[in-house]
Amino acid sequence: MATQIDTLVTARWIVPVEPENTVLEKSAIAINAGRIVDILPTDAALERYSAGETHELGDHVLIPGLVNTHTHAAMTLFRGMADDLPLMTWLQDHIWPAEQQWVAPGFVEDGTRLAIAEMLRGGTTCFNDMYFFPDHAAEVASAIGMRANVGLIVIDFPTPWAQNAGEYIHKGLEVNDRFRNDPLISCSFAPHAPYTVSDQPMRQLATYAEELNLQIHMHVHETAFEVDQAMEQHGQRPLGKLSAMNLLNERLLAVHMTQLDEAEMDLVAGYGVHVVHCPESNLKLASGFCPVDTLLARGVNVALGTDGAASNNDLDMLGEARTAAQIGKAIANDPSAVPAWQTLRMATINGAKALGLDADIGSLEIGKAADIVAVDLMQPATQPVYDPVSQLIYAASRQQVSDVWIAGKQLLRDSELTTIDQEQLITLAEDWRLKINQS
Amino acid sequence: MATQIDTLVTARWIVPVEPENTVLEKSAIAINAGRIVDILPTDAALERYSAGETHELGDHVLIPGLVNTHTHAAMTLFRGMADDLPLMTWLQDHIWPAEQQWVAPGFVEDGTRLAIAEMLRGGTTCFNDMYFFPDHAAEVASAIGMRANVGLIVIDFPTPWAQNAGEYIHKGLEVNDRFRNDPLISCSFAPHAPYTVSDQPMRQLATYAEELNLQIHMHVHETAFEVDQAMEQHGQRPLGKLSAMNLLNERLLAVHMTQLDEAEMDLVAGYGVHVVHCPESNLKLASGFCPVDTLLARGVNVALGTDGAASNNDLDMLGEARTAAQIGKAIANDPSAVPAWQTLRMATINGAKALGLDADIGSLEIGKAADIVAVDLMQPATQPVYDPVSQLIYAASRQQVSDVWIAGKQLLRDSELTTIDQEQLITLAEDWRLKINQS
Repeated sequence: MATQIDTLVTARWIVPVEPENTVLEKSAIAINAGRIVDILPTDAALERYSAGETHELGDHVLIPGLVNTHTHAAMTLFRGMADDLPLMTWLQDHIWPAEQQWVAPGFVEDGTRLAIAEMLRGGTTCFNDMYFFPDHAAEVASAIGMRANVGLIVIDFPTPWAQNAGEYIHKGLEVNDRFRNDPLISCSFAPHAPYTVSDQPMRQLATYAEELNLQIHMHVHETAFEVDQAMEQHGQRPLGKLSAMNLLNERLLAVHMTQLDEAEMDLVAGYGVHVVHCPESNLKLASGFCPVDTLLARGVNVALGTDGAASNNDLDMLGEARTAAQIGKAIANDPSAVPAWQTLRMATINGAKALGLDADIGSLEIGKAADIVAVDLMQPATQPVYDPVSQLIYAASRQQVSDVWIAGKQLLRDSELTTIDQEQLITLAEDWRLKINQS
Repeated sequence: MATQIDTLVTARWIVPVEPENTVLEKSAIAINAGRIVDILPTDAALERYSAGETHELGDHVLIPGLVNTHTHAAMTLFRGMADDLPLMTWLQDHIWPAEQQWVAPGFVEDGTRLAIAEMLRGGTTCFNDMYFFPDHAAEVASAIGMRANVGLIVIDFPTPWAQNAGEYIHKGLEVNDRFRNDPLISCSFAPHAPYTVSDQPMRQLATYAEELNLQIHMHVHETAFEVDQAMEQHGQRPLGKLSAMNLLNERLLAVHMTQLDEAEMDLVAGYGVHVVHCPESNLKLASGFCPVDTLLARGVNVALGTDGAASNNDLDMLGEARTAAQIGKAIANDPSAVPAWQTLRMATINGAKALGLDADIGSLEIGKAADIVAVDLMQPATQPVYDPVSQLIYAASRQQVSDVWIAGKQLLRDSELTTIDQEQLITLAEDWRLKINQS
């Protein structure tokens, strides 16, 4: 007799990411109670299971949900407000003043909702956020059914969210407590950067992270300016300072890392620090180049993030993966560097590992959460299909993502969001633009 | 009384490209007999004109059709066949043998049709091609209603198209003659590269180009290897050799140009050589970086191309423009370099200028051909809209292209191709893959 399950998804191809370099043809994923309970040939699946819902995706490839390992979700409301400017003009004359004026719970809720709509439509099922009012971001994500790791931000200067490092940490701990039992929400500490958080709160975070088993999410070595300034002020590069404070370990997600010497790459590899690569933001802000190929060769876990929409300007993980593969080859001066299959790992399982969530997400394996993305390859742009992984990374557009499940719940169906009113959301975004433009 | 016209297209925004830095709001384009006859506010347009067809695109931005200034269209049938390989392995073990075996009229027709389907869906209305059997590519483009400049390829070694330089030139001249009166087709000479075409035919082409008023489309300084090899063999860099043969002038479209010293940039600027930048191909093959910001600062006309689908792997000009802007800033070490508005010019009017077609295409101006693209910005990924040019270059996906007109004829309507049977085309592509894979 057939076993009763919630959902069966059949597809032309499945790329499970684990095991590596595997493409299953004409196979199916069986989902029950939000988890993957089986992966098997479609014919066998149709015999073995009786599903509440069956989705036959004949021309699609199924992949694990993409993990956007660094973003500032609510900044979508500033998307395209100020581009093509020198870094300091951009920050000091545009982004920071706008944030001081506008960042508040309503702004964070609407901006995060817009970001989640965009990310779901592009196949992202989990995002690692760093922004103010993380409780409001978490609430929005949880209500939509989106998986999120919210950063408990800490920065030395006052913002609408908190006045000083002590208050940032205190409020962060409250947020962590509050969402402890939400199956979609996790938290990490998010000290902004070595140059914006003093040593004393940084040490405190290291202690709390150990006690509470939380990751630490931080911008590190984003620009040459940051490193030069640290040398001038402290006679030490930021990674040296973090090392001295015992912050280099498997808890650390070091974002950007465009300035690395040989010794620092050894250090990072030795301590198991996770590197989060944000190539499009690094290019657009002319920050420098992360040596991804060299880091991967040393065994460093390199994950992928879009950064915020003010510096990218999209939250498109397929596009980011393409850029990562392309620029990775150019920087390595080797067209075989950062191949498509490895880039897909960076966009999925490596992000899950960095967040400490790889027991649950990042690959399509029996027992893991059913975070699944279907991409329709039956478009002129992705034909013919010699290799579905090549088509995904080098040719597919995010708008070929047709269906998305998170923990077994379908959040995108035939390219339509099921838990977000898209039209209303766009009206809200337009309202924010009018308000912000008039100020 | 209202003036009778064929078509009126109204939109939320129009970015005409000429004049520079102009965004028209709530405006309309009046089209008659394939040409733009007026551009004016929508209210006035609805009073002044009585149109056979009216398209109200409330949430869209209209731009000139994108000009893909370097591609090898038929190579779509090899898309994803061989990636992530060292350059010489890729060429010698995969691409060249496949071409020797498969390139024939039917292959070129089907591959070019697939390329045109992809390009139209992404807003490209004119492509500059370099491939074998250019007569068959031209036929396909003309039948579909696509604008194309076909390269009359010349290369020293024999291929299924011709046996020697003399035959290449002779057949090319016949193709030019045959399509002389096709309003959508133009031709240029396309000697493959300085290292694959001998001096004697190269000099002959220079003479013919002058006589026949044709452009010359050539790969130049694509890799460091090419330049080093020329130094070894001839004691001269390829640009020096071209200069000695009087090939540096406003007829030349020099494609790639990743290896340029200061003197060469002066030379190129002084002679009015057009540079065709193909950033994604250059990154993916680790060829090097074209110094776009420096070239633009010297007044060089820099256009944009996708290169072929075997080395990109998409023919997505919006994506290419995004990459050009991003890598342009990173290479210039200046986030204000290669701004969005300039990148849009590279993707439109600069391509038209390079091809000598700027009297007809490349901008939305009264008197020019009605080659028009509508992009729907009413998507979460492109909201809110502070600046439609920023959204186009930094956030929009090519699948937001909803409607495309070439010479006033609508070839894409609500994202559906009007002159290509897409389903049949995809079946054909799959057939080719099966054949090629079995060989």
